Amino acid sequence: MTLKIAHLGPTGTYAEAAALAYAKTEFAGADCCLQPYPNIAQTLQAVASGEVTLAIVPVENSIEGGVTMTADTIWQLAATLQIQQAIVLPIHHALISVATDLNQIETVYSHPQALSQCQEWLQQHLPQAARIANNSTTAALTTLAALPHAAAISSVRAANLYDLPVLVQPINDYPDNQTKFWAISLQPTVAGNCTSAAFSLRSNTPGGLMTALGFFANRGLNLSRIESRPSKRSLGDYLFFIDIETDVNNCRQLKSALADLDAYAETVKNFGSYYTIAIEPT
Amino acid sequence: MTLKIAHLGPTGTYAEAAALAYAKTEFAGADCCLQPYPNIAQTLQAVASGEVTLAIVPVENSIEGGVTMTADTIWQLAATLQIQQAIVLPIHHALISVATDLNQIETVYSHPQALSQCQEWLQQHLPQAARIANNSTTAALTTLAALPHAAAISSVRAANLYDLPVLVQPINDYPDNQTKFWAISLQPTVAGNCTSAAFSLRSNTPGGLMTALGFFANRGLNLSRIESRPSKRSLGDYLFFIDIETDVNNCRQLKSALADLDAYAETVKNFGSYYTIAIEPT
Repeated sequence: MTLKIAHLGPTGTYAEAAALAYAKTEFAGADCCLQPYPNIAQTLQAVASGEVTLAIVPVENSIEGGVTMTADTIWQLAATLQIQQAIVLPIHHALISVATDLNQIETVYSHPQALSQCQEWLQQHLPQAARIANNSTTAALTTLAALPHAAAISSVRAANLYDLPVLVQPINDYPDNQTKFWAISLQPTVAGNCTSAAFSLRSNTPGGLMTALGFFANRGLNLSRIESRPSKRSLGDYLFFIDIETDVNNCRQLKSALADLDAYAETVKNFGSYYTIAIEPT
Repeated sequence: MTLKIAHLGPTGTYAEAAALAYAKTEFAGADCCLQPYPNIAQTLQAVASGEVTLAIVPVENSIEGGVTMTADTIWQLAATLQIQQAIVLPIHHALISVATDLNQIETVYSHPQALSQCQEWLQQHLPQAARIANNSTTAALTTLAALPHAAAISSVRAANLYDLPVLVQPINDYPDNQTKFWAISLQPTVAGNCTSAAFSLRSNTPGGLMTALGFFANRGLNLSRIESRPSKRSLGDYLFFIDIETDVNNCRQLKSALADLDAYAETVKNFGSYYTIAIEPT
Protein backbone atom coordinates (compact mmCIF):
# COMPACT_ATOMS: atom_id res chain seq x y z
CA MET A 1 0.00 0.00 0.00
CA THR A 2 1.26 3.46 -0.90
CA LEU A 3 1.78 5.83 2.03
CA LYS A 4 0.53 9.29 1.00
CA ILE A 5 2.30 12.24 2.68
CA ALA A 6 0.85 15.75 2.29
CA HIS A 7 3.06 18.85 2.39
CA LEU A 8 2.96 22.50 1.34
CA GLY A 9 3.69 22.79 -2.37
CA PRO A 10 4.49 23.27 -5.14
CA THR A 11 7.49 20.92 -5.25
CA GLY A 12 10.75 22.19 -3.73
CA THR A 13 9.45 23.68 -0.45
CA TYR A 14 11.27 23.21 2.84
CA ALA A 15 8.22 21.18 3.97
CA GLU A 16 8.85 18.78 1.06
CA ALA A 17 12.53 18.48 2.09
CA ALA A 18 11.37 17.64 5.64
CA ALA A 19 8.83 15.12 4.26
CA LEU A 20 11.49 13.41 2.13
CA ALA A 21 13.88 13.16 5.10
CA TYR A 22 11.09 11.85 7.34
CA ALA A 23 10.00 9.21 4.80
CA LYS A 24 13.61 8.08 4.37
CA THR A 25 14.18 7.79 8.15
CA GLU A 26 10.86 6.25 9.18
CA PHE A 27 9.68 4.34 6.13
CA ALA A 28 12.87 3.40 4.29
CA GLY A 29 11.99 1.00 1.50
CA ALA A 30 8.25 1.63 1.79
CA ASP A 31 6.22 2.95 -1.12
CA CYS A 32 5.77 6.64 -0.26
CA CYS A 33 4.01 9.24 -2.39
CA LEU A 34 4.41 12.96 -1.61
CA GLN A 35 1.35 15.11 -2.31
CA PRO A 36 1.72 18.92 -2.49
CA TYR A 37 -1.12 21.20 -1.29
CA PRO A 38 -1.54 24.94 -1.99
CA ASN A 39 -1.50 26.07 1.66
CA ILE A 40 -0.94 24.82 5.21
CA ALA A 41 -4.66 24.71 6.05
CA GLN A 42 -5.41 22.40 3.11
CA THR A 43 -2.39 20.23 3.98
CA LEU A 44 -3.85 19.62 7.45
CA GLN A 45 -7.38 19.15 6.11
CA ALA A 46 -6.07 16.40 3.80
CA VAL A 47 -4.90 14.31 6.76
CA ALA A 48 -8.00 15.14 8.86
CA SER A 49 -10.28 13.90 6.06
CA GLY A 50 -8.24 10.73 5.48
CA GLU A 51 -7.24 11.79 1.95
CA VAL A 52 -3.61 11.20 2.99
CA THR A 53 -2.02 9.24 5.87
CA LEU A 54 0.42 11.88 7.03
CA ALA A 55 0.95 15.64 6.76
CA ILE A 56 4.23 17.51 7.29
CA VAL A 57 3.64 21.10 8.43
CA PRO A 58 5.96 23.85 9.75
CA VAL A 59 5.42 24.70 13.43
CA GLU A 60 8.05 27.25 14.34
CA ASN A 61 11.20 28.87 13.10
CA SER A 62 14.18 29.70 15.32
CA ILE A 63 14.15 33.36 14.20
CA GLU A 64 10.58 34.27 13.30
CA GLY A 65 8.76 32.10 15.83
CA GLY A 66 5.45 30.23 15.56
CA VAL A 67 3.68 29.51 12.28
CA THR A 68 0.26 30.89 13.17
CA MET A 69 -1.58 29.17 10.30
CA THR A 70 -0.53 25.75 11.64
CA ALA A 71 -1.62 26.50 15.22
CA ASP A 72 -4.93 28.07 14.17
CA THR A 73 -5.83 25.22 11.76
CA ILE A 74 -4.84 22.32 14.03
CA TRP A 75 -7.14 23.81 16.69
CA GLN A 76 -10.08 24.36 14.31
CA LEU A 77 -10.14 20.88 12.73
CA ALA A 78 -12.66 18.57 14.33
CA ALA A 79 -10.54 15.44 13.83
CA THR A 80 -8.09 14.50 16.57
CA LEU A 81 -4.80 15.11 14.83
CA GLN A 82 -1.79 13.48 16.49
CA ILE A 83 1.84 14.48 16.23
CA GLN A 84 3.98 11.45 15.32
CA GLN A 85 7.34 13.23 15.20
CA ALA A 86 9.03 16.62 15.13
CA ILE A 87 11.58 17.22 12.37
CA VAL A 88 14.16 20.01 12.63
CA LEU A 89 15.51 21.22 9.29
CA PRO A 90 18.42 23.71 8.84
CA ILE A 91 17.31 26.61 6.62
CA HIS A 92 19.65 28.26 4.11
CA HIS A 93 17.80 30.75 1.95
CA ALA A 94 19.03 31.60 -1.54
CA LEU A 95 18.10 34.52 -3.80
CA ILE A 96 17.00 32.89 -7.05
CA SER A 97 16.77 34.95 -10.23
CA VAL A 98 17.65 35.03 -13.93
CA ALA A 99 18.87 38.61 -13.38
CA THR A 100 22.64 38.96 -13.50
CA ASP A 101 22.84 41.89 -11.11
CA LEU A 102 20.98 42.89 -7.93
CA ASN A 103 20.26 46.33 -9.44
CA GLN A 104 17.95 44.73 -12.01
CA ILE A 105 15.62 43.28 -9.35
CA GLU A 106 12.35 45.13 -8.71
CA THR A 107 10.32 42.45 -6.91
CA VAL A 108 11.10 39.60 -4.51
CA TYR A 109 8.67 36.72 -4.06
CA SER A 110 8.47 34.29 -1.14
CA HIS A 111 6.50 33.03 1.84
CA PRO A 112 6.06 35.77 4.50
CA GLN A 113 8.21 33.79 6.99
CA ALA A 114 11.12 33.59 4.51
CA LEU A 115 10.79 37.31 3.66
CA SER A 116 10.96 38.08 7.39
CA GLN A 117 13.95 35.79 7.92
CA CYS A 118 15.87 37.78 5.27
CA GLN A 119 14.51 41.26 6.08
CA GLU A 120 17.87 42.78 7.09
CA TRP A 121 19.59 41.37 4.00
CA LEU A 122 16.79 42.71 1.77
CA GLN A 123 16.90 46.12 3.47
CA GLN A 124 20.65 46.31 2.87
CA HIS A 125 20.95 44.83 -0.64
CA LEU A 126 17.54 45.30 -2.26
CA PRO A 127 15.95 48.34 -0.58
CA GLN A 128 14.22 49.26 -3.83
CA ALA A 129 12.50 45.88 -4.35
CA ALA A 130 8.82 45.21 -3.56
CA ARG A 131 8.32 42.14 -1.37
CA ILE A 132 5.50 39.89 -2.59
CA ALA A 133 3.96 37.41 -0.16
CA ASN A 134 3.16 33.98 -1.61
CA ASN A 135 1.64 30.88 -0.01
CA SER A 136 5.00 29.08 -0.24
CA THR A 137 8.67 29.75 -1.00
CA THR A 138 8.35 27.93 -4.34
CA ALA A 139 5.05 29.38 -5.66
CA ALA A 140 6.89 31.93 -7.84
CA LEU A 141 9.48 29.51 -9.25
CA THR A 142 7.31 28.15 -12.08
CA THR A 143 7.18 31.57 -13.77
CA LEU A 144 10.47 33.10 -12.59
CA ALA A 145 12.48 32.18 -15.74
CA ALA A 146 10.38 34.66 -17.76
CA LEU A 147 10.79 37.53 -15.23
CA PRO A 148 14.20 39.23 -15.61
CA HIS A 149 13.37 41.86 -12.94
CA ALA A 150 12.12 39.43 -10.30
CA ALA A 151 13.72 37.16 -7.70
CA ALA A 152 12.45 34.54 -5.26
CA ILE A 153 13.70 33.42 -1.85
CA SER A 154 13.84 29.64 -1.59
CA SER A 155 16.43 26.88 -1.16
CA VAL A 156 19.33 25.91 -3.48
CA ARG A 157 17.55 22.54 -3.80
CA ALA A 158 14.46 24.32 -5.16
CA ALA A 159 16.57 26.36 -7.62
CA ASN A 160 18.05 23.11 -8.95
CA LEU A 161 14.61 21.47 -9.23
CA TYR A 162 13.28 24.38 -11.32
CA ASP A 163 16.57 24.75 -13.26
CA LEU A 164 16.97 28.36 -12.09
CA PRO A 165 20.19 30.21 -11.23
CA VAL A 166 21.12 31.16 -7.66
CA LEU A 167 22.20 34.80 -7.55
CA VAL A 168 23.27 34.97 -3.86
CA GLN A 169 23.26 32.46 -0.99
CA PRO A 170 22.86 32.16 1.92
CA ILE A 171 20.88 35.36 2.53
CA ASN A 172 19.18 34.59 5.88
CA ASP A 173 19.92 37.25 8.52
CA TYR A 174 20.92 34.67 11.14
CA PRO A 175 23.16 31.78 10.03
CA ASP A 176 21.68 29.43 12.66
CA ASN A 177 18.21 29.35 11.10
CA GLN A 178 16.15 26.20 11.70
CA THR A 179 12.51 25.28 11.20
CA LYS A 180 10.65 22.64 13.20
CA PHE A 181 8.00 20.62 11.35
CA TRP A 182 5.42 18.19 12.72
CA ALA A 183 4.56 14.87 11.08
CA ILE A 184 0.83 14.55 11.79
CA SER A 185 -1.62 11.69 11.35
CA LEU A 186 -4.86 10.40 12.86
CA GLN A 187 -3.05 7.51 14.59
CA PRO A 188 -2.85 7.86 18.41
CA THR A 189 0.65 8.47 19.77
CA VAL A 190 1.85 7.28 23.13
CA ALA A 191 5.57 7.90 23.64
CA GLY A 192 8.02 10.76 23.30
CA ASN A 193 9.95 13.41 25.20
CA CYS A 194 7.56 16.23 24.32
CA THR A 195 3.78 16.43 24.59
CA SER A 196 1.85 19.21 22.82
CA ALA A 197 -1.64 20.33 23.75
CA ALA A 198 -3.88 23.38 23.50
CA PHE A 199 -6.78 24.61 25.63
CA SER A 200 -9.34 27.38 25.92
CA LEU A 201 -10.76 28.60 29.23
CA ARG A 202 -14.33 29.47 30.13
CA SER A 203 -14.57 33.25 29.97
CA ASN A 204 -14.54 35.24 33.20
CA THR A 205 -12.54 32.67 35.12
CA PRO A 206 -10.40 34.79 37.47
CA GLY A 207 -6.89 33.36 37.68
CA GLY A 208 -7.83 30.82 35.02
CA LEU A 209 -4.48 30.53 33.26
CA MET A 210 -2.48 30.13 36.49
CA THR A 211 -4.92 27.47 37.73
CA ALA A 212 -4.51 25.60 34.45
CA LEU A 213 -0.71 25.82 34.53
CA GLY A 214 -0.76 24.82 38.20
CA PHE A 215 -1.97 21.32 37.25
CA PHE A 216 1.45 20.81 35.62
CA ALA A 217 3.62 22.80 38.05
CA ASN A 218 2.19 21.04 41.12
CA ARG A 219 3.23 17.69 39.63
CA GLY A 220 6.76 18.83 38.75
CA LEU A 221 5.99 18.89 35.01
CA ASN A 222 7.82 21.62 33.08
CA LEU A 223 6.49 23.46 30.07
CA SER A 224 9.12 24.33 27.47
CA ARG A 225 6.88 26.66 25.47
CA ILE A 226 3.61 28.56 25.89
CA GLU A 227 1.94 30.42 23.06
CA SER A 228 -1.22 32.54 23.29
CA ARG A 229 -3.29 32.65 20.10
CA PRO A 230 -6.43 34.77 19.70
CA SER A 231 -9.65 32.77 20.13
CA LYS A 232 -11.05 35.19 17.50
CA ARG A 233 -14.01 35.75 19.88
CA SER A 234 -12.76 38.97 21.46
CA LEU A 235 -9.51 40.81 22.17
CA GLY A 236 -7.85 39.31 25.25
CA ASP A 237 -9.60 35.94 24.86
CA TYR A 238 -6.98 33.31 24.04
CA LEU A 239 -6.23 29.71 23.20
CA PHE A 240 -3.08 28.50 24.93
CA PHE A 241 -0.69 26.13 23.14
CA ILE A 242 1.75 24.32 25.42
CA ASP A 243 4.70 21.93 25.03
CA ILE A 244 5.22 19.72 28.10
CA GLU A 245 8.56 18.05 28.83
CA THR A 246 7.81 14.35 29.02
CA ASP A 247 9.73 11.21 29.98
CA VAL A 248 9.08 7.63 31.06
CA ASN A 249 9.12 8.66 34.72
CA ASN A 250 6.38 11.29 34.55
CA CYS A 251 3.77 9.58 32.34
CA ARG A 252 1.42 9.02 35.26
CA GLN A 253 1.68 12.64 36.46
CA LEU A 254 1.17 13.90 32.89
CA LYS A 255 -1.97 11.81 32.48
CA SER A 256 -3.45 13.07 35.72
CA ALA A 257 -2.51 16.73 34.96
CA LEU A 258 -4.25 16.47 31.58
CA ALA A 259 -7.31 14.91 33.27
CA ASP A 260 -7.47 17.86 35.71
CA LEU A 261 -7.08 20.31 32.82
CA ASP A 262 -9.83 18.52 30.93
CA ALA A 263 -12.23 18.94 33.85
CA TYR A 264 -11.31 22.60 34.36
CA ALA A 265 -10.89 24.07 30.87
CA GLU A 266 -13.57 24.76 28.28
CA THR A 267 -11.88 22.64 25.59
CA VAL A 268 -8.61 20.68 25.64
CA LYS A 269 -6.92 19.13 22.62
CA ASN A 270 -4.04 16.73 23.24
CA PHE A 271 -1.91 16.48 20.11
CA GLY A 272 0.16 13.59 21.48
CA SER A 273 3.70 12.79 22.61
CA TYR A 274 6.59 12.56 20.18
CA TYR A 275 10.37 12.63 19.68
CA THR A 276 12.37 15.03 17.51
CA ILE A 277 14.73 14.12 14.68
CA ALA A 278 17.29 16.60 13.39
CA ILE A 279 18.07 16.56 9.69
CA GLU A 280 21.70 17.05 8.74
CA PRO A 281 22.48 19.99 6.47
CA THR A 282 22.89 18.82 2.86
CA MET B 1 6.48 72.80 24.44
CA THR B 2 5.35 70.61 21.58
CA LEU B 3 4.73 66.96 22.48
CA LYS B 4 6.13 64.77 19.66
CA ILE B 5 4.33 61.45 19.13
CA ALA B 6 5.87 58.84 16.80
CA HIS B 7 3.73 56.34 14.88
CA LEU B 8 3.96 54.05 11.86
CA GLY B 9 3.46 56.07 8.68
CA PRO B 10 2.86 57.37 6.15
CA THR B 11 -0.18 59.37 7.26
CA GLY B 12 -3.49 57.51 7.52
CA THR B 13 -2.37 54.32 9.33
CA TYR B 14 -4.40 52.75 12.13
CA ALA B 15 -1.46 53.64 14.43
CA GLU B 16 -1.96 57.30 13.50
CA ALA B 17 -5.69 57.01 14.30
CA ALA B 18 -4.79 55.53 17.70
CA ALA B 19 -2.22 58.31 18.27
CA LEU B 20 -4.80 61.01 17.44
CA ALA B 21 -7.36 59.48 19.81
CA TYR B 22 -4.74 59.11 22.54
CA ALA B 23 -3.55 62.73 22.16
CA LYS B 24 -7.16 63.95 22.28
CA THR B 25 -7.96 61.93 25.44
CA GLU B 26 -4.76 62.49 27.38
CA PHE B 27 -3.44 65.84 26.16
CA ALA B 28 -6.54 67.75 25.06
CA GLY B 29 -5.54 71.31 24.33
CA ALA B 30 -1.79 70.60 24.42
CA ASP B 31 0.41 71.24 21.42
CA CYS B 32 0.92 67.72 19.92
CA CYS B 33 2.85 66.93 16.78
CA LEU B 34 2.49 63.47 15.15
CA GLN B 35 5.63 62.11 13.48
CA PRO B 36 5.35 59.20 11.04
CA TYR B 37 8.17 56.60 10.80
CA PRO B 38 8.71 54.02 8.02
CA ASN B 39 8.48 50.93 10.25
CA ILE B 40 7.68 49.81 13.80
CA ALA B 41 11.34 49.32 14.78
CA GLN B 42 12.22 52.91 13.84
CA THR B 43 9.11 54.19 15.66
CA LEU B 44 10.34 52.57 18.89
CA GLN B 45 13.93 53.68 18.31
CA ALA B 46 12.70 57.29 18.03
CA VAL B 47 11.31 57.19 21.58
CA ALA B 48 14.30 55.23 22.94
CA SER B 49 16.72 57.86 21.58
CA GLY B 50 14.65 60.78 22.91
CA GLU B 51 13.88 62.07 19.40
CA VAL B 52 10.17 61.99 20.37
CA THR B 53 8.38 61.88 23.74
CA LEU B 54 5.93 59.09 22.92
CA ALA B 55 5.50 56.26 20.42
CA ILE B 56 2.25 54.51 19.52
CA VAL B 57 2.83 50.92 18.31
CA PRO B 58 0.51 47.98 17.57
CA VAL B 59 0.83 45.08 20.04
CA GLU B 60 -1.79 42.54 19.08
CA ASN B 61 -4.83 42.05 16.93
CA SER B 62 -7.91 40.11 18.03
CA ILE B 63 -7.75 37.86 14.93
CA GLU B 64 -4.09 37.61 13.89
CA GLY B 65 -2.48 37.80 17.33
CA GLY B 66 0.79 39.40 18.43
CA VAL B 67 2.75 41.88 16.35
CA THR B 68 6.14 40.19 16.46
CA MET B 69 8.12 43.25 15.29
CA THR B 70 6.91 45.21 18.35
CA ALA B 71 7.80 42.44 20.83
CA ASP B 72 11.19 41.76 19.24
CA THR B 73 12.18 45.46 19.09
CA ILE B 74 10.99 46.44 22.57
CA TRP B 75 13.15 43.61 23.93
CA GLN B 76 16.24 44.55 21.88
CA LEU B 77 16.33 48.27 22.70
CA ALA B 78 18.72 49.10 25.53
CA ALA B 79 16.55 51.96 26.89
CA THR B 80 13.90 51.12 29.49
CA LEU B 81 10.74 51.72 27.51
CA GLN B 82 7.60 52.10 29.66
CA ILE B 83 4.01 51.53 28.62
CA GLN B 84 1.86 54.54 29.59
CA GLN B 85 -1.45 53.23 28.23
CA ALA B 86 -3.06 50.59 26.03
CA ILE B 87 -5.40 51.83 23.31
CA VAL B 88 -7.93 49.48 21.68
CA LEU B 89 -9.05 50.53 18.20
CA PRO B 90 -11.87 48.87 16.18
CA ILE B 91 -10.57 47.86 12.74
CA HIS B 92 -12.72 48.09 9.60
CA HIS B 93 -10.70 47.37 6.49
CA ALA B 94 -11.70 48.81 3.11
CA LEU B 95 -10.56 47.84 -0.38
CA ILE B 96 -9.29 51.06 -1.93
CA SER B 97 -8.83 51.31 -5.70
CA VAL B 98 -9.48 53.48 -8.76
CA ALA B 99 -10.63 50.30 -10.53
CA THR B 100 -14.39 50.16 -11.09
CA ASP B 101 -14.67 46.38 -10.93
CA LEU B 102 -12.98 43.65 -8.87
CA ASN B 103 -12.09 41.80 -12.09
CA GLN B 104 -9.67 44.56 -13.05
CA ILE B 105 -7.54 44.11 -9.92
CA GLU B 106 -4.28 42.19 -10.30
CA THR B 107 -2.42 43.21 -7.13
CA VAL B 108 -3.43 44.05 -3.56
CA TYR B 109 -1.07 46.04 -1.33
CA SER B 110 -1.12 46.22 2.48
CA HIS B 111 0.64 45.42 5.72
CA PRO B 112 0.98 41.62 6.23
CA GLN B 113 -1.36 41.75 9.28
CA ALA B 114 -4.12 43.44 7.24
CA LEU B 115 -3.65 40.98 4.35
CA SER B 116 -4.04 38.12 6.86
CA GLN B 117 -7.11 39.68 8.47
CA CYS B 118 -8.81 39.74 5.03
CA GLN B 119 -7.44 36.44 3.69
CA GLU B 120 -10.81 34.68 3.36
CA TRP B 121 -12.37 37.68 1.63
CA LEU B 122 -9.40 37.91 -0.78
CA GLN B 123 -9.54 34.17 -1.49
CA GLN B 124 -13.24 34.44 -2.31
CA HIS B 125 -13.37 37.73 -4.22
CA LEU B 126 -9.85 38.26 -5.59
CA PRO B 127 -8.30 34.79 -5.97
CA GLN B 128 -6.34 36.00 -9.02
CA ALA B 129 -4.67 38.95 -7.28
CA ALA B 130 -1.06 38.96 -6.03
CA ARG B 131 -0.76 40.08 -2.42
CA ILE B 132 2.07 42.56 -1.86
CA ALA B 133 3.40 43.06 1.67
CA ASN B 134 4.23 46.65 2.62
CA ASN B 135 5.57 48.15 5.85
CA SER B 136 2.18 49.78 6.53
CA THR B 137 -1.43 49.77 5.29
CA THR B 138 -0.93 53.23 3.74
CA ALA B 139 2.46 52.80 2.04
CA ALA B 140 0.82 52.10 -1.35
CA LEU B 141 -1.73 54.94 -1.19
CA THR B 142 0.57 57.68 -2.50
CA THR B 143 0.90 55.95 -5.90
CA LEU B 144 -2.45 54.10 -6.07
CA ALA B 145 -4.28 56.76 -8.16
CA ALA B 146 -2.02 55.93 -11.12
CA LEU B 147 -2.51 52.14 -10.87
CA PRO B 148 -5.84 51.05 -12.39
CA HIS B 149 -5.11 47.35 -11.78
CA ALA B 150 -4.08 47.68 -8.13
CA ALA B 151 -5.89 47.96 -4.81
CA ALA B 152 -4.83 48.57 -1.20
CA ILE B 153 -6.30 47.45 2.11
CA SER B 154 -6.55 50.31 4.58
CA SER B 155 -9.23 52.32 6.41
CA VAL B 156 -11.99 54.53 4.97
CA ARG B 157 -10.29 57.38 6.85
CA ALA B 158 -7.06 56.72 4.88
CA ALA B 159 -8.98 56.60 1.57
CA ASN B 160 -10.44 60.03 2.36
CA LEU B 161 -7.05 61.45 3.34
CA TYR B 162 -5.52 60.37 0.00
CA ASP B 163 -8.67 61.27 -1.95
CA LEU B 164 -9.06 57.70 -3.24
CA PRO B 165 -12.28 55.75 -3.86
CA VAL B 166 -13.40 52.87 -1.63
CA LEU B 167 -14.42 49.92 -3.80
CA VAL B 168 -15.70 47.58 -1.02
CA GLN B 169 -15.95 47.88 2.79
CA PRO B 170 -15.73 46.35 5.29
CA ILE B 171 -13.70 43.40 4.00
CA ASN B 172 -12.22 41.98 7.24
CA ASP B 173 -13.06 38.28 7.71
CA TYR B 174 -14.28 38.78 11.28
CA PRO B 175 -16.50 41.81 12.00
CA ASP B 176 -15.24 42.06 15.59
CA ASN B 177 -11.68 43.01 14.61
CA GLN B 178 -9.72 45.12 17.10
CA THR B 179 -6.08 46.09 17.48
CA LYS B 180 -4.41 46.97 20.75
CA PHE B 181 -1.69 49.64 20.66
CA TRP B 182 0.75 50.71 23.37
CA ALA B 183 1.63 54.34 24.11
CA ILE B 184 5.29 54.11 25.10
CA SER B 185 7.70 56.62 26.61
CA LEU B 186 10.82 56.69 28.79
CA GLN B 187 8.84 57.99 31.80
CA PRO B 188 8.42 55.43 34.63
CA THR B 189 4.88 54.17 35.15
CA VAL B 190 3.43 53.15 38.48
CA ALA B 191 -0.29 52.42 38.26
CA GLY B 192 -2.64 50.37 36.11
CA ASN B 193 -4.63 47.15 35.93
CA CYS B 194 -2.13 45.38 33.68
CA THR B 195 1.63 44.98 34.00
CA SER B 196 3.71 43.79 31.05
CA ALA B 197 7.16 42.27 31.33
CA ALA B 198 9.48 39.92 29.44
CA PHE B 199 12.25 37.61 30.57
CA SER B 200 14.86 35.18 29.30
CA LEU B 201 16.10 32.18 31.30
CA ARG B 202 19.62 30.89 31.71
CA SER B 203 19.95 27.95 29.33
CA ASN B 204 19.75 24.42 30.68
CA THR B 205 17.60 25.36 33.68
CA PRO B 206 15.36 22.28 34.15
CA GLY B 207 11.83 23.37 34.98
CA GLY B 208 12.88 26.98 34.44
CA LEU B 209 9.65 28.33 32.99
CA MET B 210 7.45 26.77 35.69
CA THR B 211 9.75 28.11 38.43
CA ALA B 212 9.49 31.59 36.89
CA LEU B 213 5.69 31.42 36.60
CA GLY B 214 5.50 30.03 40.13
CA PHE B 215 6.70 33.39 41.53
CA PHE B 216 3.38 34.83 40.34
CA ALA B 217 1.10 31.84 40.97
CA ASN B 218 2.30 31.37 44.55
CA ARG B 219 1.29 34.97 45.29
CA GLY B 220 -2.15 34.66 43.70
CA LEU B 221 -1.16 36.81 40.72
CA ASN B 222 -2.80 35.83 37.45
CA LEU B 223 -1.27 36.13 34.01
CA SER B 224 -3.71 37.03 31.25
CA ARG B 225 -1.29 36.33 28.40
CA ILE B 226 1.98 34.49 27.80
CA GLU B 227 3.84 34.68 24.52
CA SER B 228 7.03 32.77 23.63
CA ARG B 229 9.28 34.56 21.16
CA PRO B 230 12.49 33.02 19.77
CA SER B 231 15.64 34.32 21.48
CA LYS B 232 17.25 33.90 18.04
CA ARG B 233 20.07 31.98 19.77
CA SER B 234 18.78 28.48 19.03
CA LEU B 235 15.53 26.65 18.31
CA GLY B 236 13.65 26.04 21.56
CA ASP B 237 15.35 28.94 23.38
CA TYR B 238 12.74 31.60 24.12
CA LEU B 239 11.99 34.99 25.55
CA PHE B 240 8.70 34.98 27.47
CA PHE B 241 6.38 38.00 27.32
CA ILE B 242 3.76 38.14 30.09
CA ASP B 243 0.80 40.35 31.02
CA ILE B 244 0.04 40.28 34.76
CA GLU B 245 -3.39 41.24 36.13
CA THR B 246 -2.70 44.08 38.55
CA ASP B 247 -4.75 46.05 41.08
CA VAL B 248 -4.24 48.25 44.12
CA ASN B 249 -4.48 45.23 46.42
CA ASN B 250 -1.68 43.17 44.88
CA CYS B 251 1.04 45.83 44.29
CA ARG B 252 3.18 44.46 47.09
CA GLN B 253 2.92 40.86 45.87
CA LEU B 254 3.69 41.98 42.31
CA LYS B 255 6.79 43.84 43.43
CA SER B 256 8.09 40.86 45.34
CA ALA B 257 7.28 38.42 42.49
CA LEU B 258 9.22 40.60 40.05
CA ALA B 259 12.14 40.78 42.52
CA ASP B 260 12.21 36.95 42.71
CA LEU B 261 12.04 36.74 38.90
CA ASP B 262 14.87 39.27 38.63
CA ALA B 263 17.11 37.13 40.85
CA TYR B 264 16.22 33.89 39.03
CA ALA B 265 16.04 34.83 35.34
CA GLU B 266 18.88 35.76 33.01
CA THR B 267 17.33 39.11 32.03
CA VAL B 268 14.00 40.72 33.05
CA LYS B 269 12.48 43.81 31.46
CA ASN B 270 9.51 45.41 33.23
CA PHE B 271 7.56 47.52 30.75
CA GLY B 272 5.36 49.04 33.45
CA SER B 273 1.73 49.09 34.63
CA TYR B 274 -1.02 50.79 32.64
CA TYR B 275 -4.75 51.09 31.97
CA THR B 276 -6.56 50.51 28.67
CA ILE B 277 -8.78 52.97 26.82
CA ALA B 278 -11.19 51.80 24.14
CA ILE B 279 -11.74 54.05 21.16
CA GLU B 280 -15.31 54.29 19.88
CA PRO B 281 -15.86 53.34 16.24
CA THR B 282 -16.11 56.49 14.10
